[in-house]
Amino acid sequence: MTQIHQGAPRIGLPEVDARLAAFFTERSEQATRYGSEYQRLWSSARSASEGGKRIRPGFVLSAFDAIGGEASGVATAADAVDTAVAFELLHTAFLLHDDVIDGDTVRRGRPNVAGEFAGDAAARGIDGERAALWGETAAILAGDLLLHAAASLIARLDVPSPTRTALLDLLDHSIFVTAAGELSDVSYSLRLDEARLPDVLAMTERKTAAYSFAGPLAAGAMLAGAGGDVLAALGEYGRLLGIAFQLGDDLLGVFGEEDATGKSIVSDLREGKETSLIAYARATSAWPTIEQHFGRPDLDHDDGRRLAALLDACGSRAFVEGLVAEYADAAVAALAVPGLPLSLTDELSAVARSCVGRIA
Amino acid sequence: MTQIHQGAPRIGLPEVDARLAAFFTERSEQATRYGSEYQRLWSSARSASEGGKRIRPGFVLSAFDAIGGEASGVATAADAVDTAVAFELLHTAFLLHDDVIDGDTVRRGRPNVAGEFAGDAAARGIDGERAALWGETAAILAGDLLLHAAASLIARLDVPSPTRTALLDLLDHSIFVTAAGELSDVSYSLRLDEARLPDVLAMTERKTAAYSFAGPLAAGAMLAGAGGDVLAALGEYGRLLGIAFQLGDDLLGVFGEEDATGKSIVSDLREGKETSLIAYARATSAWPTIEQHFGRPDLDHDDGRRLAALLDACGSRAFVEGLVAEYADAAVAALAVPGLPLSLTDELSAVARSCVGRIA
Repeated sequence: MTQIHQGAPRIGLPEVDARLAAFFTERSEQATRYGSEYQRLWSSARSASEGGKRIRPGFVLSAFDAIGGEASGVATAADAVDTAVAFELLHTAFLLHDDVIDGDTVRRGRPNVAGEFAGDAAARGIDGERAALWGETAAILAGDLLLHAAASLIARLDVPSPTRTALLDLLDHSIFVTAAGELSDVSYSLRLDEARLPDVLAMTERKTAAYSFAGPLAAGAMLAGAGGDVLAALGEYGRLLGIAFQLGDDLLGVFGEEDATGKSIVSDLREGKETSLIAYARATSAWPTIEQHFGRPDLDHDDGRRLAALLDACGSRAFVEGLVAEYADAAVAALAVPGLPLSLTDELSAVARSCVGRIA
Repeated sequence: MTQIHQGAPRIGLPEVDARLAAFFTERSEQATRYGSEYQRLWSSARSASEGGKRIRPGFVLSAFDAIGGEASGVATAADAVDTAVAFELLHTAFLLHDDVIDGDTVRRGRPNVAGEFAGDAAARGIDGERAALWGETAAILAGDLLLHAAASLIARLDVPSPTRTALLDLLDHSIFVTAAGELSDVSYSLRLDEARLPDVLAMTERKTAAYSFAGPLAAGAMLAGAGGDVLAALGEYGRLLGIAFQLGDDLLGVFGEEDATGKSIVSDLREGKETSLIAYARATSAWPTIEQHFGRPDLDHDDGRRLAALLDACGSRAFVEGLVAEYADAAVAALAVPGLPLSLTDELSAVARSCVGRIA
C-alpha cells in the first residue's frame, strides 16, 4: 500500500524495519547463551520476518498518522511503531504455524524455518522423517516466541490504561478469530466440513481480514484517540477489504502470471484448497470434470492452465471477479462516516480499488 | 505442594480453579459463533488444563501470601489469582505443543487435544495420516490460544507500571528460556547434539525449572512488593528445586512403582529420552549393554525392569539420587536471606525435602 505523506515528515516503514531489526538483534544476542541451535532459531525467525510487504504495519501507521498522530496526546510515534511491529510479528508467527500445519517447507521462494532446520539435520545425516520433525519443532517454537513477542510489545506500551486495554482486547480478538479461521480452513481442506461459498467467505474473513486489515487499522486509530464511529468504520472497511484482498489472491493463485506475481498457479489447485472459485464451481455442471483433477498431487503446469480454463468457462472467474469488486466497493462505502480524515479515506479507497483487476 | 494457612483465610487453589473455569466458559461461549469444531477446540483445551497438580499457581499464591499479600498495597488477591492462572495456562500451552513435537496423543491417561481431534476425524472416515494432521492442527492452535491468554492476563493486571513491567520481563524470560530448553531436549533425543550430564542439567533447568518454579515464585513475590534480594533468592531456589524435581521425575520414570505414580516405567526408556540417568550410564562400562535396548520401540515392561537393574548396578541410580539431594539442599540453602518470611522458608524447605526419596 502507498502511504500518503503531507507536511512534516512522518514515521514510516523504515522505522518499523529498524525496530524489527533491533528486536531480533537483541533476542539473538540473548540466545548466544543457549547454544548454537537456539541462535540459529532466532536467526531463522528473523529471516521469516523479512521479505513481506509490511501491509499490516502500513495500516497501523497510516491510521495513526491520518487521525492525529502524536498531536492527539494518546501515544507517541514510537508507540505506533511498536504496535506496527507487534502486528508484523503476529503475522510471522501465524505464517510459521500455518506452514507447519500445511507441511510447507518453503515460503517466499526460500526454505522457511522448518525447511532450514530439516535441511540442516538431513545434511548432518538424520533420516528424512526425523529431520522433518526437527524442522517442525523449530517452527513451532519460533512461532510461539513471536506470538508472545507481539503481545509483550502491546502490553508494554506507555499509553493511558483504557487505550492499552482496548488494544489488548483487539489483539485477543484478532488471535481468537484467526485461530477459528485457520481451523475452518484445515477442516475444509481435509473435507471434514463441506465448504459452501458463505463458509469460504466467513473463513477468509476470520483467517485473514481480522488480524491483517481490521486489527491494524483499528489499533493505529486507537493510538490516535479515535472515537467509536471511526473505529467501527475502519473495522468494517478492514473486514470487507480483507475479503476482497483474499479473493483477489485466490484469482491470482489460478489465473495469475507467475512471472509477475511470484506465486505458483498450480499449488492451490494441487493442494485442493477450498477457495471461492472452487466453492462456486462445485455448483456448476463443470464440476465432475474439474473434480477429476482438483487436488491431484501430480498436477503439472499445463494441467493447472487447463483447470483454470474450466474455472473460467464455468463462470467461477467472472463470479469471483464480481465479488472482489463488490467487496471493494462496500469497503469504500464503509468509510463514509464523519470524523474520518479525507486523507485516510482517499488512501484507503485507493487501496481498495487496487484489489480490483489485479491480474491485469 | 502444601499451602500453609495461618490466621485469616487466604486465597488458594479453589480460587484458581474457579478463575480458570470462568476463563474457559467465557471463551467457549464466544466460540459458539465460530462453528462446532472451534467449540470443540475450546472444550478440549479446557480438558487439557484439568487434572494437573497446580504446582505453579500454588507457588504464585504461597509467595504472594507469605510476603505480605494485599497488605503490601501492590496488588489484590484477584491479581495474584490471575497471575497464578496465567502460569497454569502457560504450562498447558507448553504441554500441548510439547505433545505435538513428541507425537504424543495421550496425556494424564486420556486422549489429549491432538488425540481427541484425530480420533474424531478417524471416526468420521478420515485416513490415519490426515486424521493425525487434524489433531496436530487443533493442538497447535489450542497451544497458541493459551500461550497468548497467559500474556493477556498479565498485561491486564491493574498494578503499578513498574510491577507490570517486571512481570512482563519475567514472562518474556520464562518463555524465551523454556523454548531454548525444549529445542535442546529435542536435539538430544534426535542425537543432533551429544547430551553430556551438564547439558542435560542445563536443559532441565531451562525447560522446566524456569517457568514452573523460579517464574511463579518470583511473580507472586513481585505482586507483594518483594525486594531484589528476596526475588533473587526465590529465583535461585526455584532454579535448583526445578532441577531436583525433574531429576526425581527421571528416577520415577525408570524405578517408580507404576501403580503408585501412574507414570509408565518404560516410556522414557522406549523413547530414548536423554535423562541424567542415561548421561551418567554412557560413561560407564555398562553402556554397551544398555545401549542395545535403550530407545528400542518394542521395549516391554520386563525389558524396562531389566534396564532399570542395569542402571542401578552401574551406579546411575545412586548418582542421580545423590544429585537430587544435593540440589534440594542447595535450594534450601538459597532461601537463607534476610527478608524472606519464616513461614515461606519453612514451606519451601518442606517442598524441597519432599523431592528427596520420592520413590520410597
